[in-house]
Amino acid sequence: MMHTEMKNKVSPENWKIAAHVVDLETSIIREILKFSSQPGVISFAGGLPAPESFPLETLKVLAAEIFDNHGHIAVQYSLSRGILPLREILAKRATQRGTPSSVDNILITSGAQQGIELVARAFIEPGDYILTEDPTYVGALQAFNYYQARYATVEMDDEGMKVEQVRKKIEEFRPKLIYTVSNFQNPTGITMSEERRRQLVEIAAEFNIPIIDDNPYGDIRFAGKNMPTLKSLGGDGVIALRSFSKIMAPGLRLGWMNGPSCVIAQFEKVKQCADLHSNTFGQYLAYEFLSRGLMEPHLEMIRKIYGDKRNLMLSEIEKKFPSGIKWTKPDGGLFLWLDLPKHVSARELFPKAVEKKVAFVYGEPFFANGGGKNTLRLNYSTANKEQIVEGIGRLAELFKANF
Amino acid sequence: MMHTEMKNKVSPENWKIAAHVVDLETSIIREILKFSSQPGVISFAGGLPAPESFPLETLKVLAAEIFDNHGHIAVQYSLSRGILPLREILAKRATQRGTPSSVDNILITSGAQQGIELVARAFIEPGDYILTEDPTYVGALQAFNYYQARYATVEMDDEGMKVEQVRKKIEEFRPKLIYTVSNFQNPTGITMSEERRRQLVEIAAEFNIPIIDDNPYGDIRFAGKNMPTLKSLGGDGVIALRSFSKIMAPGLRLGWMNGPSCVIAQFEKVKQCADLHSNTFGQYLAYEFLSRGLMEPHLEMIRKIYGDKRNLMLSEIEKKFPSGIKWTKPDGGLFLWLDLPKHVSARELFPKAVEKKVAFVYGEPFFANGGGKNTLRLNYSTANKEQIVEGIGRLAELFKANF
Repeated sequence: MMHTEMKNKVSPENWKIAAHVVDLETSIIREILKFSSQPGVISFAGGLPAPESFPLETLKVLAAEIFDNHGHIAVQYSLSRGILPLREILAKRATQRGTPSSVDNILITSGAQQGIELVARAFIEPGDYILTEDPTYVGALQAFNYYQARYATVEMDDEGMKVEQVRKKIEEFRPKLIYTVSNFQNPTGITMSEERRRQLVEIAAEFNIPIIDDNPYGDIRFAGKNMPTLKSLGGDGVIALRSFSKIMAPGLRLGWMNGPSCVIAQFEKVKQCADLHSNTFGQYLAYEFLSRGLMEPHLEMIRKIYGDKRNLMLSEIEKKFPSGIKWTKPDGGLFLWLDLPKHVSARELFPKAVEKKVAFVYGEPFFANGGGKNTLRLNYSTANKEQIVEGIGRLAELFKANF
Repeated sequence: MMHTEMKNKVSPENWKIAAHVVDLETSIIREILKFSSQPGVISFAGGLPAPESFPLETLKVLAAEIFDNHGHIAVQYSLSRGILPLREILAKRATQRGTPSSVDNILITSGAQQGIELVARAFIEPGDYILTEDPTYVGALQAFNYYQARYATVEMDDEGMKVEQVRKKIEEFRPKLIYTVSNFQNPTGITMSEERRRQLVEIAAEFNIPIIDDNPYGDIRFAGKNMPTLKSLGGDGVIALRSFSKIMAPGLRLGWMNGPSCVIAQFEKVKQCADLHSNTFGQYLAYEFLSRGLMEPHLEMIRKIYGDKRNLMLSEIEKKFPSGIKWTKPDGGLFLWLDLPKHVSARELFPKAVEKKVAFVYGEPFFANGGGKNTLRLNYSTANKEQIVEGIGRLAELFKANF
């Protein structure tokens, strides 16, 4: 093709990109992950599901059958809300578990992250407050920050959000939403107690403020007793965000929302503008996986893998860490959380950790309004057992050398 | 699970959803499609790729191999920009076709619709103008409307956008973006001439306004000569939006952007908030399809299918339509466009068409600032040959009875 010299020179660096996009920070976690993936580094930094938990053989068989039996619809355009059979089975499962639901309550999303994004888009206008736990999921903060949200933060203890602080915060900040990760929270691994759940749905209903229960880990409980979900307690007052990422495979980018039908209808319009619909083929995979009863045994296997890894990490921590450190003991999910001595900065420790070939995520980015200098998050789902033993040993040495 | 009565009643219908979300209209096209899918209706309304064109056997084989060979990474989380091998091969193909590109110019999107959405999010602030063809792709208008864009519209003739009007429109409206579907436009099927392309990239560069070339149909040319893309002529002045939907399978929800690296870096941040990344598995499918040289023969097959259907529809139209109607003769893509006599409203004809068991999309929604009352769009990719013959006959009767 002939190359023609243009008279006028373009300068994309001068294009007027909206200020709130330019100001958006790249996720600090993604930056940390770059360091963590250096050769020889044992990483507790990521939040990746255990690769050995992926049901690859099953997915391969299901994929082949889908191509054979209804390939033409499985790779075709489909509904913005998601394919009907998947919404039906998700509604049925929710109903069986204490949340009466119909297909009109379900919207399939491209991962729970898109659920957060749709909520933010539908609800948040610049300057609006969101009430949330401190610390909280950094990917949610990032999505909310884009819409110029502000935060009314509530402290946590080992029963989760201190709900007794919520009324005062609501009266002071009039938040548009309450955002919580009630089960095995990212980053702390803490689960909200049943008493607190009941209190939270009551007070949210009193002020008619929607609760967003971001619940990607709820099915991965390997210790303690099952608890009613916020959605089962709060009904129409709660929008539950769920995900196939931790219970099947994150690379399919599939999640779902369960919310009041009038609100789902609004989200559907936004979803349609955003990406028309989530990938049809992955939805058929998820449907087949659920409808053939493959999910329950698979969850048992995941719980065993994660429970074993968590037990190993906790016992290594108890054995090796110096005094002055507190840690959470999660009953499920992928993460635990360390409180280092007050004077220690986990951020400053990070480059020294990478030198020692071990990585974590320091806690500051999880605090909406700053703080958490002496905290850090450890993931136990990705590393194998040898790495957990060796990596906790390296961290122990690091801590001993730097406290 | 015990059901507890809550003291306070929630009322989600009173939750404060942002006004520009509530105001968002459901796509009229999706509404039309509901009517079109009634039993016995021959539909020229949709924009679905021909189901017989899907490479199902090939995808089945590739899927099995991906699960076997690198399943653990193919269903795992991946980079927000998209997997490296896919970006590499797309950059290489673009370079070979006259657009020198590196992986830093490529961002994988969840369909070209997400490309439009990312562009809108990054560039459009309420009240900003977008310069666009009249008519234009309604899904783009919907995405832009969400951001409260306004439109500077430019008329079309059979060479595409009347570029001689562009300078005046730019001086009057100072648009933030120029949005065009330069190849086999949805809805008209018209392709911009080479001369107009050269003029457009020059004037856009003069004012340093980015051109968004929404190009999902460019590879489906079955007549006429290949033309240089706007991107190959305008270089860094153009952001090209591409898609696997029309050349492989829309249900995978995969597309890509090719743009200046400084702008791609901004889009990447927005993408990360929106859905972390596009589905990894589909990206591996697309990569394998391209890297094994399967795309070119597949495109030949699609061109043959669509060319044959277009030829049939055009010959049936010539044979059967009453006088007073003008139609486009597309050299590629999925659509052709009718101008009915000035006094006829295609919208008013629509229910009568459905009575006659034939459907189309009336033209009005494609006009950003209103108009197009006497126009309509016909799709020839979805219906089979018998349906095309029968359906054009039904339309001819409808027109004869109503002009």
